[in-house]
Amino acid sequence: MTTQEQLHQWHELAQQLRVNSIRATTTAGSGHPTSSMSPADLMAVLLAKYLRYDFNNPDNPHNDRFILSKGHAAPVLYAMYKAAGMISDQELLSLRQYGSRLEGHPTPVLPWVDVATGSLGQGLPIGVGVALAGKYLDQLSYNIWVLLGDSETTEGSVWEAFDHAAHYNLDNLIAIIDVNRLGQRGQTELGWNTQVYANRARAFGWQAIEIDGHNLVEIDQAYSAALAVNDRPTVIIARTKKGKGVEALEDIGGWHGKALKRDQEVLAIAELGGERNFTIQVDRPEEQEQQASLGNPQPLELPTYHKGAKVATRRAYGDVITALGAARPDMVVLDAEVSNSTYAEDFAEAYPERYFEMYIAEQQMVAAAVGLQVRHYKPFASTFAAFLTRAYDFVRMAAISRANIKLVGSHAGVSIGQDGPSQMGLEDLAALRAVWNSTVLYPCDANQTAKLVGLMCDRDGVVYLRTTRESTNVIYDADEQFPIGSSKVIRSSQRDQATVIAAGITLHEALKASDRLNNEGIAVRVIDAYSVKPIDVQTLHQAARDTNGNLVVVEDHWIEGGLGAAVLDAFAGNISSPAYHGPQLRLIKLAVHDMPTSGTPEELLHAAKIDADAIVEAVKSQIRQLVGASTS
Amino acid sequence: MTTQEQLHQWHELAQQLRVNSIRATTTAGSGHPTSSMSPADLMAVLLAKYLRYDFNNPDNPHNDRFILSKGHAAPVLYAMYKAAGMISDQELLSLRQYGSRLEGHPTPVLPWVDVATGSLGQGLPIGVGVALAGKYLDQLSYNIWVLLGDSETTEGSVWEAFDHAAHYNLDNLIAIIDVNRLGQRGQTELGWNTQVYANRARAFGWQAIEIDGHNLVEIDQAYSAALAVNDRPTVIIARTKKGKGVEALEDIGGWHGKALKRDQEVLAIAELGGERNFTIQVDRPEEQEQQASLGNPQPLELPTYHKGAKVATRRAYGDVITALGAARPDMVVLDAEVSNSTYAEDFAEAYPERYFEMYIAEQQMVAAAVGLQVRHYKPFASTFAAFLTRAYDFVRMAAISRANIKLVGSHAGVSIGQDGPSQMGLEDLAALRAVWNSTVLYPCDANQTAKLVGLMCDRDGVVYLRTTRESTNVIYDADEQFPIGSSKVIRSSQRDQATVIAAGITLHEALKASDRLNNEGIAVRVIDAYSVKPIDVQTLHQAARDTNGNLVVVEDHWIEGGLGAAVLDAFAGNISSPAYHGPQLRLIKLAVHDMPTSGTPEELLHAAKIDADAIVEAVKSQIRQLVGASTS
Repeated sequence: MTTQEQLHQWHELAQQLRVNSIRATTTAGSGHPTSSMSPADLMAVLLAKYLRYDFNNPDNPHNDRFILSKGHAAPVLYAMYKAAGMISDQELLSLRQYGSRLEGHPTPVLPWVDVATGSLGQGLPIGVGVALAGKYLDQLSYNIWVLLGDSETTEGSVWEAFDHAAHYNLDNLIAIIDVNRLGQRGQTELGWNTQVYANRARAFGWQAIEIDGHNLVEIDQAYSAALAVNDRPTVIIARTKKGKGVEALEDIGGWHGKALKRDQEVLAIAELGGERNFTIQVDRPEEQEQQASLGNPQPLELPTYHKGAKVATRRAYGDVITALGAARPDMVVLDAEVSNSTYAEDFAEAYPERYFEMYIAEQQMVAAAVGLQVRHYKPFASTFAAFLTRAYDFVRMAAISRANIKLVGSHAGVSIGQDGPSQMGLEDLAALRAVWNSTVLYPCDANQTAKLVGLMCDRDGVVYLRTTRESTNVIYDADEQFPIGSSKVIRSSQRDQATVIAAGITLHEALKASDRLNNEGIAVRVIDAYSVKPIDVQTLHQAARDTNGNLVVVEDHWIEGGLGAAVLDAFAGNISSPAYHGPQLRLIKLAVHDMPTSGTPEELLHAAKIDADAIVEAVKSQIRQLVGASTS
Repeated sequence: MTTQEQLHQWHELAQQLRVNSIRATTTAGSGHPTSSMSPADLMAVLLAKYLRYDFNNPDNPHNDRFILSKGHAAPVLYAMYKAAGMISDQELLSLRQYGSRLEGHPTPVLPWVDVATGSLGQGLPIGVGVALAGKYLDQLSYNIWVLLGDSETTEGSVWEAFDHAAHYNLDNLIAIIDVNRLGQRGQTELGWNTQVYANRARAFGWQAIEIDGHNLVEIDQAYSAALAVNDRPTVIIARTKKGKGVEALEDIGGWHGKALKRDQEVLAIAELGGERNFTIQVDRPEEQEQQASLGNPQPLELPTYHKGAKVATRRAYGDVITALGAARPDMVVLDAEVSNSTYAEDFAEAYPERYFEMYIAEQQMVAAAVGLQVRHYKPFASTFAAFLTRAYDFVRMAAISRANIKLVGSHAGVSIGQDGPSQMGLEDLAALRAVWNSTVLYPCDANQTAKLVGLMCDRDGVVYLRTTRESTNVIYDADEQFPIGSSKVIRSSQRDQATVIAAGITLHEALKASDRLNNEGIAVRVIDAYSVKPIDVQTLHQAARDTNGNLVVVEDHWIEGGLGAAVLDAFAGNISSPAYHGPQLRLIKLAVHDMPTSGTPEELLHAAKIDADAIVEAVKSQIRQLVGASTS
């Protein structure tokens, strides 16, 4: 039973959240007061009665987690932090100002925010990841609460989350949809038809509860019912009014993302019963349970490969993650229904309790990885490089979340052969380089893959590894080291006339070309730029100085944004790289220009002019130019 | 009633499709015979009785459309083309060979393939686009048939399509799900639980029919029922067996994507009743209806703006598409629920019949654009630049489809200000440049926006326009021309000591910097590189020659892959660009390095070191170096 006293407290808290959402946005001169007012009752009851959260120790493993998927309602979140006594009124009023922790949309600059939101439709799939950690890895009884806007349910990623949450019986996941009927530019697709939401959720296997989102008793009962169910996730579909509590705003179009002016603010606050300034005690979680142990770390024994053997780097990836799995009980693997192609299946077989099949849902896969790392697991998520593009917005947001995730894209480039262009990752290096604080690795052999995957585990940020479908020669000894940010000079002499820079599959073409050129008396340096980002600037500068500025970069990737661009960047002045001093750079980029087709790997590498033939020709054209220049 | 004769013919045709799927893949030595065998009965009835298609005129506006969303089942599609008499047996057996039109996954290299498939979960949302064209624009009675695999229904984009198709009452859209239970690496999430599929589809507003996908009578009845309904789309959920017809393959794991060996082929074909080689007459569509007229083209009158006025380029975009709408009845506009921010709402108000609200579903939006251009409409699809990343896989595939679509990303860069990083497009130039045959435009003022949007309409391929949230000065006269692939030299003198290259918002910072430097006696050239791809190589080379190789590129984008990369590429040797001859390039890239926060546009441009202050400093450092170098 809900007591009158509780109802009064919750009402007062809800009004305070509304008032403070208005005050903060009016002071900022921008922001989303009305979207913060519709869920205020829902948030008041959550904070006052249901959330188990140790605000002084956000990393307490027993804490519930709250994700504000409708990130534009940040003001109500910040008002909740103030009500919990965690931020001052002064800080509340710093909303959206330069230097404030209270950004326009929540980011983990605040210790109580686990993941950035603001790209809609991401909170629930990320919540699935946290819930997987809670139920299957931590095996602790904390709950994950996610507040969604109604507009964002049109994102397919939300239905990927509905699907996966039910598949994994995530009874620790509670979604709350704030059905305030009004999107940014007018009525939402479904308006207040909460029954359609409920039917869809039920068809996806959820408990669905329709309520009046401003009726505190109904909210209380719905939360109780959500906690009571133990075989399914729950969604609470709350009919609300945008701008609730202020007649001039309530359910009125044209108020999305608009702050009230000072005079409007005064009237609105009066209508809401004036400013309040009380704090509430948020319940801390009970801490009696023991976090599950995922095994004792064993000494790491990376697999090794004999020089000269032919092993696909994707094959090595499967071996390595399985070996790492023994040494690292915090390591978790995800795959999007291609684990027999990426070889994630090896890990799945060895450590089924730490493998999550994400089926063909790359957005959910990356989101789950982000959710898992909230609980400090080390998620490796793999699929074809081409299909990681499906989750690019999630990768972008993962960077804003300061998430530590490892992405692995197999079947890169035209060298996959017969399957044709839809399966070829040809933009992955460009896309992943253009992610803040990312690392991009591209091994050419199995021993190198082993070492790089080993290093990925503890590397912060978004770390991307590109693997190759085809088997390639093992060219490195098993004890060779491959630090991130470095490179390997594989061929080098005093007589080098040019430098060929390659990585992955084209490195082997570069070696072939080098042999052929050598037979013709032309010595070339060959650099394996396995660390595409950060790139090894010093070695590249040295090579340019040593080989008359003649560089040929060759990559199985579109001409834009990949390895060639990384090399060019190494010679451009910018804040982070040293200036180049040496002979004028004469750089040729060999990369994919025309739309590939089906064919054998050899045919396609040749057609794309990124094989040994093309490299030989490029080097010769450079030398000819040089000769031409010096004799002219 | 289905006659015995029909049943016999359909059975024979289905067996022929199976046999030819096996023959083609065995000859190729790779491919997907079993995934082609499960839908063979479904395809036989479709081809023999229901499809209305003029194979000799694929562009006949009355044609039904068929999309093979499960693109890996390409062999059954090619076997259908052979059964229709369109390709020879010899060509069938060229599957997956270099030079063949029959690629591993279908592409529009074949005249009967409208869109490339092979990235799963795209066929249905693209079908929604074609169906929108058929029902609302063409107003013709053709139907769109889409064959999906069961595995791909876990893609959220499929549910975006379910949602939008019902919202738009697309009774001309018929989805067929080939529920063969087996995905690439094992059982699918839902197995043969066709009822769950049906419940989900019904909850999303579709007619759903569960059938045995090998029962020809049930197939026939289901197709009839699909055509009979006239207020909703229909999905036929067909329980099938992967590898159907050959006991050694039928419903057996481990056969995904594997060709039979020659001896296995012989046995399989015998079991299927041997080779058949008949062709069938596919019914042509009736051609009595009149394609709807979308108005008479009016003379184009682009909006013009006064020099010195302050107008956001996004604001101009809204004006221009509305003006273009009058001149171009084939122009269609889509937006993902932010039309009051992108200003697509102006067009929506003027031409509601040619505007489609896609709600917050960017994948569906881009897919619908691809579907609309199949029927030769000119779709412009807009949202925040940041959120176009959500649809990156669809853009990638659009290029393989040789689709002509126009994408517009607003709110680019840190200059959006208070909303914070989740809303800032900072990787869009990198991502869109790395798309085959793409065009990337970035105007800095309203008159330039008008001209560029005008040019987009008839530009082939994926054409991307980046707009800015903030108002910027109109700096160009209304009669100025801005050819794609060119640039504008805005400041230039004989004494230029460096060149500043900018576009969009930073162009205005470059002008400020130029003024300040001029006051200090330092002349700099300023280039407006509004055409980021293709970039104006000649003008950049000339500037480098004229200004001692001193270039400063400044952009509101991550340091990787954007305008700076485009400029560097202009100086690298590659197949498509002329070699640079001139003084050694000393190029400084000014771009965003650190994760931005909230703040005013000015604060954030300054913090990112891409404002006039940073440009002045960069130019001075170059000149100092030069002085240092010449005196050393």
